[in-house]
Amino acid sequence: MSDTPSRTELSALGEFGLIERIASRVQLQQPSSVKGIGDDAAVIDPQGLHQVVTTDMLLEGVHFDLGYASLRHLGYKAVVVNLSDVYAMNAEPRQVTVALGLSNRFPVEAVDELYEGMLLACKNYGVDLVGGDTSSSRSGLVIGITAIGAAKPGDLVFRNGAKENDLLVVSGDLGGAYMGLQVLEREKAVFTQTGAQPELTGHEYILERQLKPEARQDIIALLRKMEVRPTSMIDISDGLASEAIHIALSSGLGVKIYDEKIPIDPATYQTARDFNLDPTTCALNGGEDYELLFTIAQADYERVKGNPSLTVVGHMTDKASGHQLVDKQGGQHELRAQGWDAFLKKS
Amino acid sequence: MSDTPSRTELSALGEFGLIERIASRVQLQQPSSVKGIGDDAAVIDPQGLHQVVTTDMLLEGVHFDLGYASLRHLGYKAVVVNLSDVYAMNAEPRQVTVALGLSNRFPVEAVDELYEGMLLACKNYGVDLVGGDTSSSRSGLVIGITAIGAAKPGDLVFRNGAKENDLLVVSGDLGGAYMGLQVLEREKAVFTQTGAQPELTGHEYILERQLKPEARQDIIALLRKMEVRPTSMIDISDGLASEAIHIALSSGLGVKIYDEKIPIDPATYQTARDFNLDPTTCALNGGEDYELLFTIAQADYERVKGNPSLTVVGHMTDKASGHQLVDKQGGQHELRAQGWDAFLKKS
Repeated sequence: MSDTPSRTELSALGEFGLIERIASRVQLQQPSSVKGIGDDAAVIDPQGLHQVVTTDMLLEGVHFDLGYASLRHLGYKAVVVNLSDVYAMNAEPRQVTVALGLSNRFPVEAVDELYEGMLLACKNYGVDLVGGDTSSSRSGLVIGITAIGAAKPGDLVFRNGAKENDLLVVSGDLGGAYMGLQVLEREKAVFTQTGAQPELTGHEYILERQLKPEARQDIIALLRKMEVRPTSMIDISDGLASEAIHIALSSGLGVKIYDEKIPIDPATYQTARDFNLDPTTCALNGGEDYELLFTIAQADYERVKGNPSLTVVGHMTDKASGHQLVDKQGGQHELRAQGWDAFLKKS
Repeated sequence: MSDTPSRTELSALGEFGLIERIASRVQLQQPSSVKGIGDDAAVIDPQGLHQVVTTDMLLEGVHFDLGYASLRHLGYKAVVVNLSDVYAMNAEPRQVTVALGLSNRFPVEAVDELYEGMLLACKNYGVDLVGGDTSSSRSGLVIGITAIGAAKPGDLVFRNGAKENDLLVVSGDLGGAYMGLQVLEREKAVFTQTGAQPELTGHEYILERQLKPEARQDIIALLRKMEVRPTSMIDISDGLASEAIHIALSSGLGVKIYDEKIPIDPATYQTARDFNLDPTTCALNGGEDYELLFTIAQADYERVKGNPSLTVVGHMTDKASGHQLVDKQGGQHELRAQGWDAFLKKS
C-alpha cells in the first residue's frame, strides 16, 4: 500500500459509514437485481430461470500474498473465480455478494482498492454486487464471495453428463497461472534476501494469468454460436488432472488425456524449463487457470476442430480403464489429482 | 475436543474424501433444490418466487471462542443467524451454502461436529445445504454462510417501509445473548486463572441465547396468521438501538423507544445486576438476540396487543425528532448504535 499516502482508520468510519461508502459506488445494472445493498438480504427476480449458486473463500497466506498481489487485482480475481464456476454450469452470472474479514491494519483506502477491483470485474462481466458482510478479523484478510447466475433449466451443463467416447476439450492454455506464481515467489524471496527489485519483465503473460485471471464468458458464447452443447463441463481451478477426474468420477467413466495435446503457451513452457520444471506437470496440476474443461459428442468434432481457443486433449473411456495420461511414446501413466491435497499438507 | 478420542487428519482424507463425507450426510428436502453439493454450482428452481440472498462471515477470536462454544453449537448458530436475515425479509429460507477455512489443528472429527450442528439447523428450519467450499486457513476457523430464501414479490418486507406513527414492535426478549456471553467470559477467566471448573448452573437460558440461538420463524408464521403485515422489518443482530436506527434512517424517519417497555427476561435482568451492568443498556446494545424488530400501522395494534411474544417498544416519528430513548421519568436521551463500532476498535 505504498501508493496510498492517506490512511483513514476503519473505526473512524464505522459500520454505517463503511456500508454507505461501499453502497455509493455500486450501481445495479441487472434487471434481475430488485434490491441490492442495504437490507437484511438482497432480492433477485429470477425471471422464470433457474438459479445457480456458488461460493468461494480466499484467505490471506493461503490463497494470496499481499506481498505481491495488489488489492485491486485480488478483488478482481476473487470475483472472477466465482463467475468462472457459474459459466462452468453454462449459466450467466448476474449477482455477487461479498463477505470480508478485515484486520485493523487495513485502512479505509485499502478497502476501497479491494472494492475497485471487485467492481471492475462486476462491470466487465455485467454482474451486480448486491450485498455482503464486513467484520473484524484477528488475523489476515478473508474474502468470501458468492455468485448467483441464471439459466434455462435445459441449458445447464453438469459434471456428470459425459458419455463414453466423448471428446475432452479445454479452452485456452494451461499452466500459466502456476508459472506466474513461481516467478512471483522467486522474486519475493530474492527481495527478502537481497533487497533487489523484482525482475518481472518478459513474464507479463503468466503474471496476468496468476494475478488477474479472466473467466471464459467468451467460450460459453462461442459454443452457443457453434451450436455445440457440452455433455459435461467444469472450470479448471485445481488443474487439468483433478478436473478431468472430477468429470470422469461424476459421469461414472474413465478418462484418457494425451500429454502432447495439452495446450501450453510458449511463455509458460520456457519459464517452466528455466525453473527445471516439467511444463506438462505444471499444466496438469498447476491450477488457477480458470479455463473451461468440457466433453462433447464425437459428432461435434468438426465444429470445434481448428478453433484456436479450443483443444481436444483426450476422450472419455469406460470406467474400468481408469484415469490415464498417455505420453509421447504411447506409454500410459495413472493420472493423479495433486492440487488440493498437497496444499492442505503444506499449510 | 476432549470428547473426541480419535483424530483423523484432514490431509489423510483429502479434498474428494472430505466433500464425499459431507455430501453423504446431506439429504435435500426442498423441492426447489434441483442440484446440491458436487458440481461447480448448486441449482435452484425459484418456482416463480423472488429470491433473497444474505451472507455472513464468522471468524474465530472475533465472533466465537472455541474455549467455550462447542463446534456443534457454533455450526448451528452460524446457519441460524443467516436464516434470521431471511425471515427479516418476510421470506422463507430454503438453501444455504457453507464456505469453511480450516487450519490443520482441526481433525476430520471436528469438521464432522461442525456439520452436525449446521445440518441440525437445516433440518429444524427445513433448509437444504446445497454447496460450499473448504480451504486451508493459516489462522483460525472461518465460517462463511450464504442463505437463500423465497417469497412472493408482494410479501417481501424491507427496512425502508416504516411510516410516521407506526408502532415499533419487538419479538421475544432482549439482552440475554449478551449476558450469556458475559457469564462465559467470566468463567473462562476464572478457569484460566485458577483452574476452577465453570459454574454455569442457573444460567441455562442466557447461555442458550448466546450459544444456540433460534431464528424467529414462528413470529413470521404468527404475523401471517394474525393478518398483520409489518411495514418494515429487521433482525436484531447488533442490538435494539442499532436496528431501530437502521429502520429510521432507511425509512427517512425518526424513532422513539421507551426504556420501560423493552422486554427483558428476569434471568437476563438478574445477571446484569450481578455484573453491575444496566439491564436496559444490555438490551439496547448487547446484540445477537436474533429477535425480529418491525413496524406496524397503528390500526394493527389491537391484533398484536397482549400477545406474549410481541412487545410494542416505541414508535416512528418525523425525521427531525431524531433517535430518542425515553426513560422512566420521561427524560429523552439520544439513542446510539454501539455494537459494531466499539467492536472494530477493540480488535
